Amino acid sequence: MSDGTTPAVDVALFGALGDLALRKLYVALYHLDREGLMHEETRILGLARQEYDIDAFRARVRDALESRVPGDERTEETLTRFLDRLAYIQLEFDATEGYRQISQWHGHNSHPLTVYLSVPARLYGEICSNLSQTGCLDSESRVVVEKPIGYDLESSREINDAIGAVFDESRIYRIDHYLGKETVQNLLALRFANPLFGNQWNQNQISHVEITVAETVGIEGRWGYFDQAGQLRDMVQNHLMQLLCMIAMDPPSNLDADSIRDEKVKVLKALRPIEGERLNTDVVRGQYVAGTSGGKQVPGYLEEEGANTDSRTETFVAFKTEVSNWRWAGVPFYLRTGKRMPEKLSQIVIHFRQQSHYIFDPDQRGMASNKLIIRLQPDEGIALQVLTKDSGLDKGMRLRTGPLHLDFHQAFPSTRIPDAYERLLLEVMKGQQYLFVRRDEIEYAWRWVDTLIAGWEARDMPPKRYPAGSWGPVSSIAMITQDGRSWYEDY
Amino acid sequence: MSDGTTPAVDVALFGALGDLALRKLYVALYHLDREGLMHEETRILGLARQEYDIDAFRARVRDALESRVPGDERTEETLTRFLDRLAYIQLEFDATEGYRQISQWHGHNSHPLTVYLSVPARLYGEICSNLSQTGCLDSESRVVVEKPIGYDLESSREINDAIGAVFDESRIYRIDHYLGKETVQNLLALRFANPLFGNQWNQNQISHVEITVAETVGIEGRWGYFDQAGQLRDMVQNHLMQLLCMIAMDPPSNLDADSIRDEKVKVLKALRPIEGERLNTDVVRGQYVAGTSGGKQVPGYLEEEGANTDSRTETFVAFKTEVSNWRWAGVPFYLRTGKRMPEKLSQIVIHFRQQSHYIFDPDQRGMASNKLIIRLQPDEGIALQVLTKDSGLDKGMRLRTGPLHLDFHQAFPSTRIPDAYERLLLEVMKGQQYLFVRRDEIEYAWRWVDTLIAGWEARDMPPKRYPAGSWGPVSSIAMITQDGRSWYEDY
Repeated sequence: MSDGTTPAVDVALFGALGDLALRKLYVALYHLDREGLMHEETRILGLARQEYDIDAFRARVRDALESRVPGDERTEETLTRFLDRLAYIQLEFDATEGYRQISQWHGHNSHPLTVYLSVPARLYGEICSNLSQTGCLDSESRVVVEKPIGYDLESSREINDAIGAVFDESRIYRIDHYLGKETVQNLLALRFANPLFGNQWNQNQISHVEITVAETVGIEGRWGYFDQAGQLRDMVQNHLMQLLCMIAMDPPSNLDADSIRDEKVKVLKALRPIEGERLNTDVVRGQYVAGTSGGKQVPGYLEEEGANTDSRTETFVAFKTEVSNWRWAGVPFYLRTGKRMPEKLSQIVIHFRQQSHYIFDPDQRGMASNKLIIRLQPDEGIALQVLTKDSGLDKGMRLRTGPLHLDFHQAFPSTRIPDAYERLLLEVMKGQQYLFVRRDEIEYAWRWVDTLIAGWEARDMPPKRYPAGSWGPVSSIAMITQDGRSWYEDY
Repeated sequence: MSDGTTPAVDVALFGALGDLALRKLYVALYHLDREGLMHEETRILGLARQEYDIDAFRARVRDALESRVPGDERTEETLTRFLDRLAYIQLEFDATEGYRQISQWHGHNSHPLTVYLSVPARLYGEICSNLSQTGCLDSESRVVVEKPIGYDLESSREINDAIGAVFDESRIYRIDHYLGKETVQNLLALRFANPLFGNQWNQNQISHVEITVAETVGIEGRWGYFDQAGQLRDMVQNHLMQLLCMIAMDPPSNLDADSIRDEKVKVLKALRPIEGERLNTDVVRGQYVAGTSGGKQVPGYLEEEGANTDSRTETFVAFKTEVSNWRWAGVPFYLRTGKRMPEKLSQIVIHFRQQSHYIFDPDQRGMASNKLIIRLQPDEGIALQVLTKDSGLDKGMRLRTGPLHLDFHQAFPSTRIPDAYERLLLEVMKGQQYLFVRRDEIEYAWRWVDTLIAGWEARDMPPKRYPAGSWGPVSSIAMITQDGRSWYEDY
């Protein structure tokens, strides 16, 4: 966690012409370079099936940068410096020839070979094995992998076993890009550097917690892929579980990767499963039907291109759970995520308990409580809902409430918020794992998800319909309102 | 504390051509009228020694309004409506003739006669007695008095006895205009409607409290008056003690005047006196010498016009005390107030305890803690100091801190903050006493002040010198730094 010069690495990027690489990874690497956070000897090797020469590859990356980096954040000099770091090797992932070229390129210099697998997870094992067999790796080599890791506990174990046969856990960087968001890291500072919040972070002071990750998009041409997974596997098992861990974990004794991850695992182990009668009361599955999104008529999930008309895959899930430990017993955690929602919104809301004795205007009793609102999307920031006196002269001691924005930007408005991938790639270069997901975290999350899916299957429970452009099935509203609460709406 | 129409009153204003009336009272009354918060039958009778006719009086008040109310807050219509409420009677305070005219003017209609004594406190007794003897008063009549009430416990008792001989305590409105400030009332909302703060408002979570009331002015031609009093009597006994009470009081069971004032009295009773050895360690008296204020050379206190060259009267006092009760034992309260300070500043700072375990950048250990900063002057507002993660990519888990402004204006920027006198006069009209000072509050405050003054006199302790334009004698800095703390400076 120390500062200082970023060490040099040799990055070998599998999937170098893929969507993630072109949308996110080069842009993030470019920013690190431009800000002086990339060692001058760091090199980046693109690996893909396409026959590109180095000039064509650089031209492709230049295009990606020019379309995604704002004009005032690039000059010909900074672009050229970055592009000069690039090399390209055409390779078939299942043939060993190309791998020998990687070994040659790396030349076993002192800069750790850092393999970035921006390819489907089913290829992870084979690529790792080929890298190992062709002598590319040594004890310093690292591997970076993207979600999803598997489809359930069993398949994730297979994938992790295959990676683990070649890389030690301390060399494996599993990305959940939510952990790279500034605001998620700020949760650590907020909780553990501010006694004002840290002291109250428990069931005595917090009444309930909400996590919403809403997308406006539908399936975007990947119906076949998504239909195999569903929203629970695709979003809850990774992003929502990680957010829940960052909110709920006990304070780690220090910020070492394993101190943090040990605490996160404790949360996942204590997470109450949804099974038995709770399948009826504590969870709502949804699937969107035709409706209106962004002012346009859009088709239902079963009418999307490539759709299999009898699919029961959920595009929405809302549930209530609890972290059954000393800190959180009795505090409901309400989570929901869905496609074709009215807005793109990722937000955590910590609801503090109401004041037990109330002395202000009786008409306003129960009006509002303190809330901490942590936003990841569409904009990052933290706000605190505070009750103040209405300053209108005619208002006596009436109160009013409003979210008061607490975040860094207010105090430090000139700061650029780095993209999650910038932070994560920098940490990989520094060899620091605290923002990456450990194997046991993934496995405990799958175990919880698998239990829920097994319950749905055993009871043959189909998803409920909701119109595209709505907040999901009405029963997802009822689930929280029957507890006398509601999903937070005003920011 | 209910809303609704303001009842009609007959205001009889003694000192109608005095400084306070012309600077503050007509402006405040005008604003209440303009905002529809003054009953249409409410009338205002000016009383003073000067021979004015009604037209001359109205012209004088019009001048005062035109020079003090911003142009966009007045029209000929609103000015005329207000001026039409005015009447004027010339009277000698010690002769009963004029009083009969008051009685006649009031005519014992159903609107309570509300006597506002904007005259020196030594006249309170005589005026009250004359009002009573001439039959002006009935059981509904009220009296409003201004500080200072007396010079010590004994003289304040005499004055309160004289008022009390005529008015029941429930009809006496003792003004401390600090209680009329929006931000001071907001302290009630902040503490008692926000569990986030209310739960931590005690010695377990708060390390210490600071109150600063700094003036830039010197004596302003009233040397003779001030020299009899000194800063302790003139500022601490009333304003600083009231602020301390609002911070330190236990939560009242409801917002009734006596519920609040009972809690304030408990604080004053529990306030540790400064006596014995504490006279050397816990208090610093100061008197300014020549220096620079607002970029100009200014004379010392003993060189001011009218000065008595051997005066030992203090123009500055800083002290440390404690509220010796369950909530506050062990939490120092540092207070200071002075003239010829570098800036005009009234501010309360609640310092929350440091996190006991620290896991961030070791270089930053002890850097900052949560603070709540409550500002009354030069601008009103509340800010919270929070520690956040430095979002600079090269900063790892370094923290940064800044005061994040929490107040109403951020959320409700269009709101005009009413002047303290508007709020207070409105409450008088409504017959609500919760923002006014009860007799026993004044007496406990005097008791504490008298003990300190007796100690100074017994030990023959002269004030320490400080240059005009400085923050007081260096020993007032030392008093807090020897506890490992410092006066808060950054807002």
